[in-house]
Amino acid sequence: MGRQIFFNGEFHGETDKLLSIQDRGLCFGDGLFEVIRCVDGRFLLFSKHIARMRESAAALRMAFPHTDAELLEACRELSRRNGVRDGELYLEITRGEAPRYHTFPEGVRPTFFIVLIPLRKMPENCWSVGVKTVTFPDTRGGYCHLKTINLLSNVLGKQHAKEKGAFEALFFREDARGPYLTEGPSSSIFCIKDGVLLTPTLDNILPGTTRRCVMDLARQDGMEVREQRLYLQDFATADENFISSTVSEVMPVIQVDDTVLCGGAKGPLTDRLQKLYAAFKGDHLE
Amino acid sequence: MGRQIFFNGEFHGETDKLLSIQDRGLCFGDGLFEVIRCVDGRFLLFSKHIARMRESAAALRMAFPHTDAELLEACRELSRRNGVRDGELYLEITRGEAPRYHTFPEGVRPTFFIVLIPLRKMPENCWSVGVKTVTFPDTRGGYCHLKTINLLSNVLGKQHAKEKGAFEALFFREDARGPYLTEGPSSSIFCIKDGVLLTPTLDNILPGTTRRCVMDLARQDGMEVREQRLYLQDFATADENFISSTVSEVMPVIQVDDTVLCGGAKGPLTDRLQKLYAAFKGDHLE
Repeated sequence: MGRQIFFNGEFHGETDKLLSIQDRGLCFGDGLFEVIRCVDGRFLLFSKHIARMRESAAALRMAFPHTDAELLEACRELSRRNGVRDGELYLEITRGEAPRYHTFPEGVRPTFFIVLIPLRKMPENCWSVGVKTVTFPDTRGGYCHLKTINLLSNVLGKQHAKEKGAFEALFFREDARGPYLTEGPSSSIFCIKDGVLLTPTLDNILPGTTRRCVMDLARQDGMEVREQRLYLQDFATADENFISSTVSEVMPVIQVDDTVLCGGAKGPLTDRLQKLYAAFKGDHLE
Repeated sequence: MGRQIFFNGEFHGETDKLLSIQDRGLCFGDGLFEVIRCVDGRFLLFSKHIARMRESAAALRMAFPHTDAELLEACRELSRRNGVRDGELYLEITRGEAPRYHTFPEGVRPTFFIVLIPLRKMPENCWSVGVKTVTFPDTRGGYCHLKTINLLSNVLGKQHAKEKGAFEALFFREDARGPYLTEGPSSSIFCIKDGVLLTPTLDNILPGTTRRCVMDLARQDGMEVREQRLYLQDFATADENFISSTVSEVMPVIQVDDTVLCGGAKGPLTDRLQKLYAAFKGDHLE
Protein backbone atom coordinates (compact mmCIF):
# COMPACT_ATOMS: atom_id res chain seq x y z
CA MET A 1 0.00 0.00 0.00
CA GLY A 2 1.25 3.48 -0.85
CA ARG A 3 1.60 6.49 1.36
CA GLN A 4 -1.36 7.44 3.54
CA ILE A 5 -2.75 10.96 3.66
CA PHE A 6 -5.31 12.67 5.86
CA PHE A 7 -8.26 13.91 3.80
CA ASN A 8 -11.38 15.51 5.29
CA GLY A 9 -11.04 13.65 8.55
CA GLU A 10 -10.12 10.22 7.19
CA PHE A 11 -7.02 8.38 6.04
CA HIS A 12 -6.66 7.46 2.38
CA GLY A 13 -3.97 6.57 -0.15
CA GLU A 14 -1.99 9.47 -1.58
CA THR A 15 -3.07 8.77 -5.16
CA ASP A 16 -6.67 7.78 -4.35
CA LYS A 17 -9.28 9.66 -6.32
CA LEU A 18 -10.81 11.86 -3.64
CA LEU A 19 -11.87 15.07 -5.38
CA SER A 20 -14.35 15.97 -8.05
CA ILE A 21 -13.70 18.55 -10.75
CA GLN A 22 -15.90 20.94 -8.76
CA ASP A 23 -13.26 21.62 -6.13
CA ARG A 24 -12.62 25.37 -5.98
CA GLY A 25 -8.94 24.74 -5.44
CA LEU A 26 -8.83 23.16 -8.89
CA CYS A 27 -11.01 25.75 -10.67
CA PHE A 28 -10.08 29.03 -8.95
CA GLY A 29 -6.97 28.45 -6.86
CA ASP A 30 -9.34 29.26 -3.99
CA GLY A 31 -7.19 27.72 -1.27
CA LEU A 32 -4.23 27.99 1.10
CA PHE A 33 -1.39 25.76 2.18
CA GLU A 34 1.34 25.32 4.79
CA VAL A 35 4.54 23.32 4.96
CA ILE A 36 5.74 22.15 8.38
CA ARG A 37 8.95 20.36 9.25
CA CYS A 38 8.65 16.97 10.92
CA VAL A 39 11.62 16.15 13.17
CA ASP A 40 11.83 12.83 14.94
CA GLY A 41 8.07 12.36 14.66
CA ARG A 42 7.26 15.80 16.07
CA PHE A 43 6.33 19.02 14.31
CA LEU A 44 8.30 22.24 14.33
CA LEU A 45 6.34 25.37 15.28
CA PHE A 46 3.14 23.50 14.55
CA SER A 47 0.88 25.98 16.35
CA LYS A 48 2.41 28.98 14.59
CA HIS A 49 1.87 27.43 11.16
CA ILE A 50 -1.72 26.46 11.94
CA ALA A 51 -2.39 29.92 13.37
CA ARG A 52 -1.17 31.52 10.13
CA MET A 53 -3.33 29.15 8.08
CA ARG A 54 -6.35 29.84 10.26
CA GLU A 55 -5.87 33.63 10.02
CA SER A 56 -5.39 33.45 6.25
CA ALA A 57 -8.53 31.36 5.89
CA ALA A 58 -10.42 33.95 7.94
CA ALA A 59 -9.05 36.72 5.69
CA LEU A 60 -10.53 34.86 2.71
CA ARG A 61 -13.72 34.08 4.69
CA MET A 62 -13.10 30.37 4.37
CA ALA A 63 -14.32 28.05 7.13
CA PHE A 64 -11.59 26.18 8.99
CA PRO A 65 -12.78 22.67 9.79
CA HIS A 66 -10.37 21.34 12.43
CA THR A 67 -9.03 22.23 15.86
CA ASP A 68 -5.29 22.40 16.45
CA ALA A 69 -5.50 19.29 18.60
CA GLU A 70 -7.30 17.31 15.87
CA LEU A 71 -4.71 18.35 13.33
CA LEU A 72 -1.77 17.53 15.56
CA GLU A 73 -3.19 14.10 16.26
CA ALA A 74 -3.76 13.54 12.52
CA CYS A 75 -0.16 14.51 11.79
CA ARG A 76 1.18 12.17 14.46
CA GLU A 77 -0.94 9.38 13.04
CA LEU A 78 0.46 10.09 9.57
CA SER A 79 3.96 9.86 10.98
CA ARG A 80 3.12 6.47 12.53
CA ARG A 81 1.25 5.09 9.53
CA ASN A 82 3.90 6.10 7.02
CA GLY A 83 6.91 5.46 9.21
CA VAL A 84 8.15 8.99 8.49
CA ARG A 85 9.95 10.59 11.41
CA ASP A 86 11.88 13.22 9.48
CA GLY A 87 9.91 14.84 6.78
CA GLU A 88 7.83 17.61 5.27
CA LEU A 89 4.22 18.01 6.19
CA TYR A 90 2.01 19.65 3.55
CA LEU A 91 -1.41 20.94 4.56
CA GLU A 92 -3.95 22.42 2.17
CA ILE A 93 -7.41 23.88 2.54
CA THR A 94 -9.73 24.86 -0.30
CA ARG A 95 -13.16 26.43 -0.11
CA GLY A 96 -14.62 23.06 -1.11
CA GLU A 97 -16.69 21.63 -3.94
CA ALA A 98 -19.49 23.55 -5.63
CA PRO A 99 -20.70 24.30 -9.16
CA ARG A 100 -18.24 26.69 -10.79
CA TYR A 101 -19.38 30.25 -10.12
CA HIS A 102 -16.81 32.73 -8.85
CA THR A 103 -18.74 33.97 -5.80
CA PHE A 104 -18.45 32.14 -2.49
CA PRO A 105 -20.82 29.16 -2.41
CA GLU A 106 -23.17 28.72 0.56
CA GLY A 107 -23.07 25.77 2.93
CA VAL A 108 -20.03 24.10 1.45
CA ARG A 109 -17.57 22.10 3.52
CA PRO A 110 -13.93 23.01 2.87
CA THR A 111 -11.55 20.43 1.48
CA PHE A 112 -8.71 19.86 3.94
CA PHE A 113 -5.85 17.45 3.50
CA ILE A 114 -2.42 16.68 4.92
CA VAL A 115 0.46 14.82 3.32
CA LEU A 116 3.66 13.78 5.10
CA ILE A 117 6.61 12.86 2.91
CA PRO A 118 10.22 12.08 3.82
CA LEU A 119 12.58 15.05 3.47
CA ARG A 120 13.31 15.70 -0.18
CA LYS A 121 16.78 15.01 -1.57
CA MET A 122 18.81 18.20 -1.20
CA PRO A 123 21.95 19.16 -3.13
CA GLU A 124 25.00 17.53 -1.57
CA ASN A 125 26.49 19.51 1.32
CA CYS A 126 24.23 22.45 0.49
CA TRP A 127 24.11 23.69 4.06
CA SER A 128 27.91 23.81 4.31
CA VAL A 129 28.81 24.70 0.72
CA GLY A 130 25.92 27.01 -0.14
CA VAL A 131 23.71 27.17 -3.22
CA LYS A 132 23.34 29.17 -6.43
CA THR A 133 20.32 31.37 -7.12
CA VAL A 134 18.94 33.22 -10.14
CA THR A 135 16.79 36.32 -10.29
CA PHE A 136 13.29 36.08 -11.75
CA PRO A 137 10.75 38.89 -12.30
CA ASP A 138 8.21 39.12 -9.50
CA THR A 139 4.99 39.58 -11.44
CA ARG A 140 2.84 37.91 -8.82
CA GLY A 141 -0.46 39.39 -7.72
CA GLY A 142 -1.52 41.19 -4.60
CA TYR A 143 -2.17 38.40 -2.11
CA CYS A 144 1.43 37.28 -1.52
CA HIS A 145 1.06 37.91 2.21
CA LEU A 146 -1.28 34.88 2.21
CA LYS A 147 0.06 31.42 1.41
CA THR A 148 -2.40 30.79 -1.41
CA ILE A 149 -2.27 28.07 -4.04
CA ASN A 150 -2.18 30.67 -6.86
CA LEU A 151 1.38 29.56 -7.51
CA LEU A 152 1.89 29.66 -11.24
CA SER A 153 4.57 32.38 -10.93
CA ASN A 154 6.31 30.33 -8.28
CA VAL A 155 6.23 27.26 -10.52
CA LEU A 156 7.73 29.22 -13.42
CA GLY A 157 10.38 30.76 -11.16
CA LYS A 158 11.43 27.39 -9.77
CA GLN A 159 11.49 25.85 -13.23
CA HIS A 160 13.69 28.71 -14.46
CA ALA A 161 16.05 28.15 -11.52
CA LYS A 162 16.26 24.43 -12.25
CA GLU A 163 17.08 25.06 -15.89
CA LYS A 164 19.82 27.48 -14.88
CA GLY A 165 21.31 24.93 -12.51
CA ALA A 166 20.26 27.00 -9.50
CA PHE A 167 18.67 25.90 -6.24
CA GLU A 168 16.21 28.77 -5.95
CA ALA A 169 14.92 31.80 -7.80
CA LEU A 170 14.94 35.23 -6.19
CA PHE A 171 11.93 37.31 -7.22
CA PHE A 172 12.67 40.95 -7.99
CA ARG A 173 10.59 44.04 -8.63
CA GLU A 174 11.90 47.42 -9.76
CA ASP A 175 11.59 50.98 -8.61
CA ALA A 176 13.35 54.17 -9.67
CA ARG A 177 16.51 53.07 -7.86
CA GLY A 178 16.65 49.71 -9.61
CA PRO A 179 15.75 46.06 -9.01
CA TYR A 180 14.99 44.95 -5.47
CA LEU A 181 14.47 41.45 -4.12
CA THR A 182 11.24 40.30 -2.48
CA GLU A 183 11.39 36.58 -1.74
CA GLY A 184 11.93 33.24 -3.46
CA PRO A 185 9.14 30.98 -4.77
CA SER A 186 9.47 29.06 -1.51
CA SER A 187 11.93 31.01 0.66
CA SER A 188 12.69 34.30 2.40
CA ILE A 189 15.79 36.32 1.52
CA PHE A 190 18.50 37.65 3.85
CA CYS A 191 21.92 39.22 3.69
CA ILE A 192 24.40 40.46 6.25
CA LYS A 193 26.30 43.71 5.83
CA ASP A 194 28.66 45.13 8.43
CA GLY A 195 27.22 42.73 10.97
CA VAL A 196 23.60 43.85 10.35
CA LEU A 197 21.02 41.30 9.21
CA LEU A 198 18.95 42.72 6.35
CA THR A 199 15.73 41.26 4.94
CA PRO A 200 12.93 42.69 2.75
CA THR A 201 10.09 44.53 4.45
CA LEU A 202 6.75 42.69 4.50
CA ASP A 203 5.38 44.54 1.50
CA ASN A 204 3.20 41.97 -0.28
CA ILE A 205 5.50 39.12 0.72
CA LEU A 206 4.79 36.16 2.96
CA PRO A 207 5.56 36.59 6.67
CA GLY A 208 7.66 33.42 6.72
CA THR A 209 7.67 31.37 9.89
CA THR A 210 11.36 30.47 9.53
CA ARG A 211 12.10 34.10 8.55
CA ARG A 212 10.57 35.25 11.85
CA CYS A 213 12.61 32.71 13.86
CA VAL A 214 15.85 33.71 12.19
CA MET A 215 15.21 37.38 12.93
CA ASP A 216 14.38 36.63 16.57
CA LEU A 217 17.42 34.39 17.01
CA ALA A 218 19.70 37.01 15.50
CA ARG A 219 18.34 39.73 17.78
CA GLN A 220 18.66 37.52 20.85
CA ASP A 221 22.24 36.89 19.81
CA GLY A 222 22.95 40.62 19.76
CA MET A 223 22.76 41.26 16.02
CA GLU A 224 21.02 44.28 14.63
CA VAL A 225 18.16 43.23 12.33
CA ARG A 226 16.71 45.59 9.76
CA GLU A 227 13.70 45.15 7.45
CA GLN A 228 14.06 47.37 4.42
CA ARG A 229 13.73 47.44 0.66
CA LEU A 230 16.56 45.12 -0.35
CA TYR A 231 18.10 46.21 -3.64
CA LEU A 232 19.81 43.57 -5.74
CA GLN A 233 22.90 45.76 -5.78
CA ASP A 234 23.06 45.74 -1.97
CA PHE A 235 22.40 42.00 -1.84
CA ALA A 236 25.14 41.34 -4.39
CA THR A 237 27.71 43.36 -2.42
CA ALA A 238 26.77 42.14 1.07
CA ASP A 239 29.21 40.25 3.27
CA GLU A 240 26.99 37.17 3.54
CA ASN A 241 23.77 35.94 1.97
CA PHE A 242 21.27 33.23 2.73
CA ILE A 243 17.67 32.17 2.20
CA SER A 244 15.37 30.57 4.74
CA SER A 245 12.38 28.25 4.62
CA THR A 246 10.86 25.34 6.47
CA VAL A 247 12.82 22.88 4.35
CA SER A 248 15.93 24.94 3.49
CA GLU A 249 16.21 26.27 7.06
CA VAL A 250 19.22 28.65 6.93
CA MET A 251 20.69 28.03 3.48
CA PRO A 252 23.87 29.92 2.45
CA VAL A 253 23.67 31.57 -0.96
CA ILE A 254 26.99 31.84 -2.77
CA GLN A 255 25.86 33.02 -6.19
CA VAL A 256 23.10 35.12 -7.75
CA ASP A 257 22.99 34.95 -11.54
CA ASP A 258 26.65 35.33 -12.59
CA THR A 259 27.78 37.09 -9.44
CA VAL A 260 29.70 35.06 -6.88
CA LEU A 261 28.77 36.13 -3.35
CA CYS A 262 30.78 36.12 -0.16
CA GLY A 263 33.87 34.72 -1.91
CA GLY A 264 31.85 31.65 -2.89
CA ALA A 265 31.67 30.23 0.62
CA LYS A 266 29.37 30.27 3.62
CA GLY A 267 30.08 33.23 5.90
CA PRO A 268 30.73 33.06 9.65
CA LEU A 269 27.52 34.77 10.77
CA THR A 270 25.44 32.53 8.52
CA ASP A 271 27.17 29.60 10.16
CA ARG A 272 26.36 31.07 13.55
CA LEU A 273 22.67 31.46 12.62
CA GLN A 274 22.58 27.87 11.35
CA LYS A 275 23.81 26.65 14.72
CA LEU A 276 21.32 28.83 16.60
CA TYR A 277 18.51 27.57 14.38
CA ALA A 278 19.53 23.94 14.90
CA ALA A 279 19.37 24.44 18.66
CA PHE A 280 16.06 26.31 18.38
CA LYS A 281 14.52 23.47 16.39
CA GLY A 282 15.03 20.96 19.15
CA ASP A 283 13.19 23.19 21.59
CA HIS A 284 10.13 23.96 19.47
CA LEU A 285 8.72 20.62 18.43
CA GLU A 286 5.08 19.84 19.14
CA MET B 1 -27.91 9.96 -12.67
CA GLY B 2 -26.48 13.47 -12.48
CA ARG B 3 -24.79 15.51 -15.14
CA GLN B 4 -22.12 13.80 -17.25
CA ILE B 5 -18.71 15.34 -17.85
CA PHE B 6 -15.83 14.45 -20.13
CA PHE B 7 -12.71 13.64 -18.12
CA ASN B 8 -9.45 12.41 -19.63
CA GLY B 9 -11.18 10.80 -22.58
CA GLU B 10 -14.09 9.21 -20.73
CA PHE B 11 -17.53 10.20 -19.51
CA HIS B 12 -18.18 10.39 -15.78
CA GLY B 13 -20.58 11.98 -13.31
CA GLU B 14 -19.94 15.65 -12.50
CA THR B 15 -19.40 14.96 -8.79
CA ASP B 16 -17.53 11.67 -9.20
CA LYS B 17 -14.23 11.54 -7.39
CA LEU B 18 -11.78 11.61 -10.28
CA LEU B 19 -8.70 13.46 -9.01
CA SER B 20 -6.11 12.83 -6.37
CA ILE B 21 -4.64 15.54 -4.15
CA GLN B 22 -1.54 15.40 -6.37
CA ASP B 23 -3.16 17.28 -9.24
CA ARG B 24 -1.06 20.35 -10.04
CA GLY B 25 -4.21 22.35 -10.68
CA LEU B 26 -5.14 21.85 -7.06
CA CYS B 27 -1.67 22.48 -5.58
CA PHE B 28 -0.21 25.17 -7.85
CA GLY B 29 -2.99 26.56 -10.01
CA ASP B 30 -0.91 25.05 -12.82
CA GLY B 31 -3.70 25.00 -15.39
CA LEU B 32 -5.80 26.84 -17.96
CA PHE B 33 -9.48 27.03 -18.85
CA GLU B 34 -11.92 28.17 -21.53
CA VAL B 35 -15.62 28.92 -21.57
CA ILE B 36 -17.52 28.36 -24.83
CA ARG B 37 -21.13 29.15 -25.60
CA CYS B 38 -23.33 26.26 -26.68
CA VAL B 39 -26.20 27.36 -28.97
CA ASP B 40 -28.75 24.86 -30.20
CA GLY B 41 -26.32 22.00 -29.60
CA ARG B 42 -23.46 23.67 -31.48
CA PHE B 43 -20.48 25.60 -30.21
CA LEU B 44 -19.69 29.24 -30.88
CA LEU B 45 -16.18 29.96 -32.19
CA PHE B 46 -15.10 26.55 -30.96
CA SER B 47 -11.88 26.47 -33.01
CA LYS B 48 -10.82 29.93 -31.85
CA HIS B 49 -11.26 29.01 -28.18
CA ILE B 50 -9.38 25.74 -28.56
CA ALA B 51 -6.61 27.51 -30.49
CA ARG B 52 -6.19 30.00 -27.62
CA MET B 53 -6.11 27.17 -25.08
CA ARG B 54 -3.59 25.23 -27.15
CA GLU B 55 -1.34 28.29 -27.55
CA SER B 56 -1.56 29.11 -23.85
CA ALA B 57 -0.69 25.52 -22.95
CA ALA B 58 2.33 25.74 -25.27
CA ALA B 59 3.38 29.00 -23.58
CA LEU B 60 3.36 27.14 -20.25
CA ARG B 61 5.02 24.09 -21.87
CA MET B 62 2.04 21.93 -21.01
CA ALA B 63 1.16 18.99 -23.27
CA PHE B 64 -2.23 19.24 -24.98
CA PRO B 65 -3.84 15.81 -25.13
CA HIS B 66 -6.64 16.09 -27.68
CA THR B 67 -7.23 17.08 -31.28
CA ASP B 68 -9.86 19.69 -32.12
CA ALA B 69 -11.99 16.98 -33.73
CA GLU B 70 -11.85 14.79 -30.62
CA LEU B 71 -12.87 17.71 -28.44
CA LEU B 72 -15.70 18.79 -30.69
CA GLU B 73 -17.07 15.25 -30.74
CA ALA B 74 -16.80 15.08 -26.93
CA CYS B 75 -18.71 18.34 -26.60
CA ARG B 76 -21.44 17.18 -28.94
CA GLU B 77 -21.70 13.96 -26.96
CA LEU B 78 -22.01 15.99 -23.74
CA SER B 79 -24.82 17.99 -25.31
CA ARG B 80 -26.62 14.76 -26.24
CA ARG B 81 -26.02 12.96 -22.95
CA ASN B 82 -27.08 15.91 -20.81
CA GLY B 83 -29.84 17.17 -23.05
CA VAL B 84 -28.29 20.64 -22.96
CA ARG B 85 -28.69 22.54 -26.22
CA ASP B 86 -28.15 26.05 -24.87
CA GLY B 87 -25.45 26.29 -22.33
CA GLU B 88 -21.95 27.07 -21.17
CA LEU B 89 -19.11 24.73 -21.91
CA TYR B 90 -16.23 24.80 -19.43
CA LEU B 91 -12.90 23.22 -20.42
CA GLU B 92 -9.90 22.92 -18.14
CA ILE B 93 -6.42 21.52 -18.51
CA THR B 94 -3.87 21.08 -15.73
CA ARG B 95 -0.31 19.81 -15.95
CA GLY B 96 -1.51 16.57 -14.32
CA GLU B 97 -0.80 14.60 -11.18
CA ALA B 98 2.64 14.30 -9.63
CA PRO B 99 4.27 14.56 -6.21
CA ARG B 100 4.23 18.21 -5.14
CA TYR B 101 7.46 19.84 -6.30
CA HIS B 102 7.21 23.16 -8.11
CA THR B 103 9.27 22.24 -11.19
CA PHE B 104 7.58 20.62 -14.18
CA PRO B 105 7.26 16.85 -13.64
CA GLU B 106 8.46 14.46 -16.34
CA GLY B 107 6.23 12.05 -18.21
CA VAL B 108 2.96 13.18 -16.66
CA ARG B 109 -0.34 13.13 -18.53
CA PRO B 110 -2.30 16.37 -18.29
CA THR B 111 -5.70 16.39 -16.65
CA PHE B 112 -8.31 17.54 -19.17
CA PHE B 113 -12.02 17.85 -18.53
CA ILE B 114 -15.12 19.44 -20.01
CA VAL B 115 -18.38 20.35 -18.32
CA LEU B 116 -21.53 21.51 -20.12
CA ILE B 117 -24.16 23.23 -18.01
CA PRO B 118 -27.37 25.01 -19.01
CA LEU B 119 -27.02 28.79 -19.29
CA ARG B 120 -26.87 30.35 -15.85
CA LYS B 121 -29.76 32.45 -14.60
CA MET B 122 -29.07 36.04 -15.60
CA PRO B 123 -30.57 39.19 -14.04
CA GLU B 124 -34.00 39.88 -15.52
CA ASN B 125 -33.91 41.83 -18.78
CA CYS B 126 -30.20 42.51 -18.27
CA TRP B 127 -29.50 42.75 -22.00
CA SER B 128 -32.18 45.39 -22.49
CA VAL B 129 -32.00 47.21 -19.15
CA GLY B 130 -28.27 47.00 -18.50
CA VAL B 131 -26.36 46.11 -15.34
CA LYS B 132 -24.50 47.78 -12.50
CA THR B 133 -20.77 47.38 -11.97
CA VAL B 134 -18.32 48.24 -9.21
CA THR B 135 -14.62 49.00 -9.41
CA PHE B 136 -12.15 46.67 -7.72
CA PRO B 137 -8.35 47.01 -7.44
CA ASP B 138 -6.52 44.98 -10.09
CA THR B 139 -3.76 43.41 -8.04
CA ARG B 140 -3.49 40.34 -10.23
CA GLY B 141 -0.18 38.95 -11.33
CA GLY B 142 1.64 39.00 -14.62
CA TYR B 143 0.03 36.18 -16.59
CA CYS B 144 -3.37 37.75 -17.22
CA HIS B 145 -2.92 37.35 -20.97
CA LEU B 146 -3.30 33.59 -20.34
CA LYS B 147 -6.59 32.17 -19.09
CA THR B 148 -5.06 30.50 -16.05
CA ILE B 149 -6.84 29.06 -13.04
CA ASN B 150 -4.95 31.43 -10.68
CA LEU B 151 -8.25 33.18 -10.09
CA LEU B 152 -8.29 34.20 -6.45
CA SER B 153 -8.40 37.92 -7.37
CA ASN B 154 -11.25 37.23 -9.77
CA VAL B 155 -13.14 35.35 -7.07
CA LEU B 156 -12.70 38.24 -4.63
CA GLY B 157 -13.71 40.78 -7.26
CA LYS B 158 -16.88 38.89 -8.16
CA GLN B 159 -17.75 38.39 -4.50
CA HIS B 160 -17.30 42.13 -3.89
CA ALA B 161 -19.60 42.87 -6.84
CA LYS B 162 -22.24 40.48 -5.55
CA GLU B 163 -22.18 42.07 -2.11
CA LYS B 164 -22.57 45.52 -3.66
CA GLY B 165 -25.55 44.35 -5.69
CA ALA B 166 -23.56 44.61 -8.91
CA PHE B 167 -23.37 42.22 -11.85
CA GLU B 168 -19.64 42.53 -12.44
CA ALA B 169 -16.51 44.10 -11.01
CA LEU B 170 -14.27 46.30 -13.16
CA PHE B 171 -10.61 45.88 -12.28
CA PHE B 172 -8.61 49.10 -12.15
CA ARG B 173 -4.94 49.98 -11.88
CA GLU B 174 -3.50 53.46 -11.39
CA ASP B 175 -0.91 55.59 -13.08
CA ALA B 176 0.08 59.23 -12.65
CA ARG B 177 -3.10 60.35 -14.45
CA GLY B 178 -5.40 58.31 -12.20
CA PRO B 179 -7.27 55.02 -12.16
CA TYR B 180 -7.71 53.14 -15.42
CA LEU B 181 -9.81 50.07 -16.15
CA THR B 182 -8.36 46.80 -17.39
CA GLU B 183 -11.06 44.12 -17.53
CA GLY B 184 -13.64 42.38 -15.35
CA PRO B 185 -13.08 39.09 -13.50
CA SER B 186 -14.85 37.42 -16.43
CA SER B 187 -15.43 40.15 -19.03
CA SER B 188 -13.85 42.73 -21.32
CA ILE B 189 -14.65 46.43 -20.98
CA PHE B 190 -15.87 48.85 -23.66
CA CYS B 191 -17.26 52.35 -23.97
CA ILE B 192 -18.37 54.51 -26.85
CA LYS B 193 -17.50 58.19 -27.09
CA ASP B 194 -18.39 60.41 -30.02
CA GLY B 195 -19.16 57.31 -32.04
CA VAL B 196 -15.75 55.73 -31.39
CA LEU B 197 -15.54 52.33 -29.68
CA LEU B 198 -12.88 52.37 -26.96
CA THR B 199 -11.45 49.36 -25.13
CA PRO B 200 -8.30 48.81 -23.04
CA THR B 201 -5.09 47.90 -24.82
CA LEU B 202 -3.94 44.28 -24.35
CA ASP B 203 -1.48 45.14 -21.60
CA ASN B 204 -1.55 42.11 -19.29
CA ILE B 205 -5.23 41.50 -19.97
CA LEU B 206 -6.89 38.55 -21.67
CA PRO B 207 -7.38 38.78 -25.45
CA GLY B 208 -11.07 37.97 -25.12
CA THR B 209 -12.69 36.01 -27.91
CA THR B 210 -15.96 37.96 -27.66
CA ARG B 211 -13.95 41.21 -27.32
CA ARG B 212 -12.26 40.44 -30.65
CA CYS B 213 -15.61 39.71 -32.34
CA VAL B 214 -17.17 42.91 -31.07
CA MET B 215 -14.24 44.96 -32.35
CA ASP B 216 -14.39 43.28 -35.76
CA LEU B 217 -18.16 43.70 -36.02
CA ALA B 218 -17.93 47.37 -35.09
CA ARG B 219 -15.22 48.00 -37.71
CA GLN B 220 -17.15 46.16 -40.40
CA ASP B 221 -20.12 48.33 -39.49
CA GLY B 222 -18.09 51.47 -40.08
CA MET B 223 -17.27 52.39 -36.50
CA GLU B 224 -13.85 53.57 -35.50
CA VAL B 225 -12.34 51.24 -32.88
CA ARG B 226 -9.51 52.34 -30.65
CA GLU B 227 -7.48 50.34 -28.10
CA GLN B 228 -6.03 52.63 -25.49
CA ARG B 229 -5.49 53.07 -21.77
CA LEU B 230 -9.06 53.52 -20.60
CA TYR B 231 -9.23 55.86 -17.62
CA LEU B 232 -12.14 55.50 -15.24
CA GLN B 233 -12.88 59.19 -15.76
CA ASP B 234 -13.26 58.67 -19.52
CA PHE B 235 -15.34 55.53 -19.00
CA ALA B 236 -17.62 57.35 -16.55
CA THR B 237 -18.23 60.22 -18.99
CA ALA B 238 -18.61 58.17 -22.17
CA ASP B 239 -21.81 58.13 -24.19
CA GLU B 240 -22.34 54.38 -23.81
CA ASN B 241 -20.75 51.56 -21.87
CA PHE B 242 -20.82 47.79 -22.01
CA ILE B 243 -18.91 44.66 -21.11
CA SER B 244 -18.50 41.54 -23.20
CA SER B 245 -17.91 37.87 -22.52
CA THR B 246 -18.91 34.45 -23.79
CA VAL B 247 -21.89 34.39 -21.42
CA SER B 248 -22.68 38.12 -21.11
CA GLU B 249 -22.21 38.68 -24.85
CA VAL B 250 -22.74 42.46 -25.29
CA MET B 251 -24.02 43.59 -21.89
CA PRO B 252 -24.96 47.26 -21.38
CA VAL B 253 -23.46 48.85 -18.28
CA ILE B 254 -25.58 51.60 -16.74
CA GLN B 255 -23.74 52.21 -13.50
CA VAL B 256 -20.20 52.07 -12.13
CA ASP B 257 -19.97 52.46 -8.35
CA ASP B 258 -22.30 55.42 -7.61
CA THR B 259 -22.11 56.94 -11.07
CA VAL B 260 -25.07 56.41 -13.39
CA LEU B 261 -23.90 55.97 -16.98
CA CYS B 262 -25.57 56.84 -20.25
CA GLY B 263 -28.65 58.22 -18.49
CA GLY B 264 -29.24 54.82 -16.91
CA ALA B 265 -30.30 53.12 -20.13
CA LYS B 266 -28.78 51.09 -22.95
CA GLY B 267 -27.42 53.30 -25.72
CA PRO B 268 -28.27 53.06 -29.43
CA LEU B 269 -24.82 51.89 -30.60
CA THR B 270 -24.72 49.23 -27.89
CA ASP B 271 -28.07 48.06 -29.15
CA ARG B 272 -26.70 48.00 -32.68
CA LEU B 273 -23.70 45.91 -31.59
CA GLN B 274 -26.00 43.50 -29.75
CA LYS B 275 -27.95 42.93 -32.96
CA LEU B 276 -24.76 42.47 -35.00
CA TYR B 277 -23.45 40.02 -32.42
CA ALA B 278 -26.70 38.05 -32.41
CA ALA B 279 -26.48 37.69 -36.19
CA PHE B 280 -22.79 36.80 -35.99
CA LYS B 281 -23.50 34.03 -33.50
CA GLY B 282 -25.76 32.17 -35.84
CA ASP B 283 -23.05 32.10 -38.50
CA HIS B 284 -20.16 30.87 -36.32
CA LEU B 285 -21.38 27.71 -34.69
CA GLU B 286 -19.32 24.54 -35.01
